Amino acid sequence: MKQLGNLFDRIIGRINVNLRDFGFDAAAFIRGIIPLKRLLQLNAFLGMTHQHPIHFRFRSSSLAGSYFLGKCLVDHAVLYKSDVRGDELKGKGDQFKFQGLEIPVHDDEVIRIKDAILVKTLVHCYSHDPEFLEELCIQNTASMPYANIHGSSIEGCFLGPFSTVDLTTLHDSVIGAFSYVQVGELSHYRVKPGTVWIKSGDDFEFHYAFSRKTLKKYIAEESDIIPGGLFMDFMDTRKNDFQKLFDLLPYKAPLSVPRNASLNRYALVNGQNHIGENVLVVQRAHLGNAWLGKGSNVQENCYIINSRLEGNNVTAHGAKIIHAKLGRNVFVGFNSFLRGKSESSLEIGEACIVMPHTIIDLDEPLIIPAQHLVWGHIKNAKDLQENTVSIGELSKVKEKLTLKAMTFQGSGSKFIQAFKHRIEHILETNGAFYDGRNNKGHAQKKQYISYHIVQPYRKGPKKGFYPSIEIRS
Amino acid sequence: MKQLGNLFDRIIGRINVNLRDFGFDAAAFIRGIIPLKRLLQLNAFLGMTHQHPIHFRFRSSSLAGSYFLGKCLVDHAVLYKSDVRGDELKGKGDQFKFQGLEIPVHDDEVIRIKDAILVKTLVHCYSHDPEFLEELCIQNTASMPYANIHGSSIEGCFLGPFSTVDLTTLHDSVIGAFSYVQVGELSHYRVKPGTVWIKSGDDFEFHYAFSRKTLKKYIAEESDIIPGGLFMDFMDTRKNDFQKLFDLLPYKAPLSVPRNASLNRYALVNGQNHIGENVLVVQRAHLGNAWLGKGSNVQENCYIINSRLEGNNVTAHGAKIIHAKLGRNVFVGFNSFLRGKSESSLEIGEACIVMPHTIIDLDEPLIIPAQHLVWGHIKNAKDLQENTVSIGELSKVKEKLTLKAMTFQGSGSKFIQAFKHRIEHILETNGAFYDGRNNKGHAQKKQYISYHIVQPYRKGPKKGFYPSIEIRS
Repeated sequence: MKQLGNLFDRIIGRINVNLRDFGFDAAAFIRGIIPLKRLLQLNAFLGMTHQHPIHFRFRSSSLAGSYFLGKCLVDHAVLYKSDVRGDELKGKGDQFKFQGLEIPVHDDEVIRIKDAILVKTLVHCYSHDPEFLEELCIQNTASMPYANIHGSSIEGCFLGPFSTVDLTTLHDSVIGAFSYVQVGELSHYRVKPGTVWIKSGDDFEFHYAFSRKTLKKYIAEESDIIPGGLFMDFMDTRKNDFQKLFDLLPYKAPLSVPRNASLNRYALVNGQNHIGENVLVVQRAHLGNAWLGKGSNVQENCYIINSRLEGNNVTAHGAKIIHAKLGRNVFVGFNSFLRGKSESSLEIGEACIVMPHTIIDLDEPLIIPAQHLVWGHIKNAKDLQENTVSIGELSKVKEKLTLKAMTFQGSGSKFIQAFKHRIEHILETNGAFYDGRNNKGHAQKKQYISYHIVQPYRKGPKKGFYPSIEIRS
Repeated sequence: MKQLGNLFDRIIGRINVNLRDFGFDAAAFIRGIIPLKRLLQLNAFLGMTHQHPIHFRFRSSSLAGSYFLGKCLVDHAVLYKSDVRGDELKGKGDQFKFQGLEIPVHDDEVIRIKDAILVKTLVHCYSHDPEFLEELCIQNTASMPYANIHGSSIEGCFLGPFSTVDLTTLHDSVIGAFSYVQVGELSHYRVKPGTVWIKSGDDFEFHYAFSRKTLKKYIAEESDIIPGGLFMDFMDTRKNDFQKLFDLLPYKAPLSVPRNASLNRYALVNGQNHIGENVLVVQRAHLGNAWLGKGSNVQENCYIINSRLEGNNVTAHGAKIIHAKLGRNVFVGFNSFLRGKSESSLEIGEACIVMPHTIIDLDEPLIIPAQHLVWGHIKNAKDLQENTVSIGELSKVKEKLTLKAMTFQGSGSKFIQAFKHRIEHILETNGAFYDGRNNKGHAQKKQYISYHIVQPYRKGPKKGFYPSIEIRS
C-alpha cells in the first residue's frame, strides 16, 4: 500500500503547510487513527433515490466504510467510515439570499472533498458561505472521529474528535476536540478543546468552555494516540452490531413504519420501538426501545435508547439520548450526550433547546422545565441551575448574561429567534410537516433508497484505492 | 415500471424486424421469462482486480443479478442474471491473426451490449470476427436461459435456452434450444433445436441432431411459457443456495486453496472438496464433493458433483459432471450434461473429447476409453458405441464418417488438430501451465477480486433501471 501511504503523506504535508502558524503537525494525530487493514475490508455505500439528483465522482481516493448521498465529488482523499450527504444542496437557478442580497446559483451545487482525510466524519447540508455558491469544498484538511462538518467550506484545517463546524467557513484553523463553532467565518484561528461558540455578527454571541477535567473524562485526545474517553467507548459498544447490518445485502424492516416516515436500512434497531408519522431515522442511527412521535428525526450517529420523543423533535447529528423523556419540539444539538439511568431518568419539557455539545450525565433524576435553554455539563439539579436559562428570560437580555462558564452577549431575542427559525427549517427539511401532499422532506424522500456498494483494489500498486467511479441518474 | 416496459417493447420490436424473414415473434418467448419484481430485488456485480484492465459503462439499462468483469459497455439493454466476462479481450497494439493476415488492433477491445435482452446468459472471450476487432457487439438480440455467447458478435438474433454460439458471427438468425454452432459466420439462418454443428470452411464439418423426444425431456421450450425440462429443473435445485452467497458481503473461503489457484467467492461449495494447483473455479460454479486435479478449470454454471477430475481438465461454460471420474486432459464441452449415479458411475479415459452439448445420462455404469470423442445422447454402453469414435480413427477420416445422427465431413486430422489446439489454448489462458513465474492465467489473476455491487432505482419513472455508471481503473 505504498501509493496509499504516499497519499497520506501528501495530505498531511498540505495540512501542515496551512497550519504552519501554529507549528501544527497533523501526522501525530493521523498516524494510527485508521487501521490500514480495514481500508481493504470495508466497502463504500452510495445511496440513490429517484427523489435526489445524484452525481458521484470518485478519483484516486480511499472510501472505506463511507456513505454518500446526493452530489459528492472526491479526489485524492481518504474517507474512513464517513457520511457525506449531498442531499440538501442548492440547485441550479436557486436564489441564494444573504444579508438582503440575492445571488443566483448558476449550477447544481456539489460537495467536493479534495486532499483530505476524514475519519468517521459527517458532512452535510449546503455551503452557507456566499462566496462558495456551487461547491461545498473540504480541502487540505483532516478531521478526527465523529467530527461534523455542516454547511461549512473548509480549507487547510484540523478538526478534533467530536468537534462540529456548523455554518462556518474555515481557513487554516484548528478546532479542538468536542468544540462547536458557528461563527460564519474563521481564519488562522485555534479553538481550544471543549469550546461552544456561536456568533452572529454584532447581533449575539454565545460562549461556553468545558473544564479540562470534564473533557478528559468524555473525550481525551493527545497526539500519537487514538482518541479515548467515554464518548469513544460508547461509540465502540455497538460497532459490531452495526457491522452486521453493513454485511448483509437483503433487508427486512425490523418494525412497521408509516408510509410517510423512513427508517434507513443501515440504522441499528433493537428492542421495542415506535416510529410515528413523518419520522426520519437515517443511517448509522441507533434505536433501542425508542418511542418517536410524529415529525421527530434521528440523524447520523445518534442513539435513542430507552427514551421517548413526543414529536417534532430534532436530534441533530451525533446526539445521544438515553433514559429520557423529551416533550414536543425539544431540540437536541449536535453531539450532545444526554444520559439518564433507569433509576435517575431525564425529563425535558416542551420546546426546550439543548445547545450543541451539551453533556447531561445523571446520577439522580432530573426534570428540565419547558421552554428552557440548557448547555454545558449537567450531572444534577444543582448543575442545571448553573447551566440553564428560560427562553423567556434569555429573550429579554439586551447586552450580556453570564452564568459560570457561559457568557452570552448581544440580543437574546435575536438569538432565540434565529434558533427557532433554524429548528423550524430543520423540521421542514426533514419532512415533519408533510401533510400527504405538501412539505415533503427527507422522511418522505428517503423511503426507497438503493445502495451501490463499492470496494477498493485488494492487491497491486493501487491497493486500498477505489477505481475511478462516476454515477449519474 | 412503464419506462422499463417500453424498453422491453423497443428491443422486441428491433429483434422482430431483424427476424421478419421467419415471421418470428420474440415477444412470445420473452414475456414472462423475467419476473419483473426480481429486477428490483437483485443487484449487479462488477468484478475488478489489479490484473484486469477495466472499463464498465452502463446506461439506460437493467442489470439485475448480472456479473461483469473486464471491459463491458451496456446501453438500452436488460441483462438478467447474466455473466459478461470481458477478461480475454484484445488489447490495443495486439496483432489479430486471421488466415495468414495480421491486422493491428487500434484500441482496447470492449464487449458492447446494446438493445438486447440477455437472460442467464454467458458472454465471454474476444470477438473472433476479423471484421469486428475492437468490439464484441451484441445488438438487437435476445437470449434465453443458459445460452452461451462465446467470442461471437451477434446482431438481430434470438438464441434459445441452453444454446451456444461459439466463435460465430451471427446476423438475423434464430438458434434453437440446446443448439451449438461454431461455423464462423451465419446470416438469415434458423438452426433447429438440438443441433450440434461445427464447420471450418472446407476443412471439416461436424453435425449432430438430438431427437425431438430427447430434447423434450431435457429442454422443453414453447412460446409463451418459460422453458422447462430436466435441465431447467436441475439449475433450479441450488438457486436458493446461490442466492445466499450473493446476499452476504464478507466472505470466508470454505476450503484451503493453493496460492496459484482461485476459487471465486460466488462459487457454491458443499461437501468435501479438493482444489489442486493452478485450478480455476469461477462465479456461479458449484462444487459438491469435487476433486479437482492440477490445472483443471470449472467455468460459469458448471456443476461438479461427487466427481474427480485428474488434472488439466477443461469444463466449459455450463457443463455438469455428476458421479464421474475424468482422466487427465479430458475436455468437456459447453453445456454438456454428464450424469452418472452412485451405483452407475461414469468413467472417462485420458484425453477424451466430450463434444459440446453432449448428454450422458446413465442407468448403468459406463467407461469411455481413453482418446475417444463422444457426442449426442448416451444412456448406456450400446448408445456409446453409436456416439463415439476413437481420436485415432477420426484422424484417419478424409471425406466422410456417418454414425446414426452424426455426420462428419472433411479432414478428421484437421478437426482433431484444431480441437487439441483450442483445448491447449484454453488451459493456457486459464493458468493451467503456470510455473510460479511464467504462463499466468485466470487461475492466478483472479485471486484478489473486488466486487462493486450496484442496484436499480426502486421507485419513480426510472424504476428498475440502473443509473449511468462509469468505472475505470
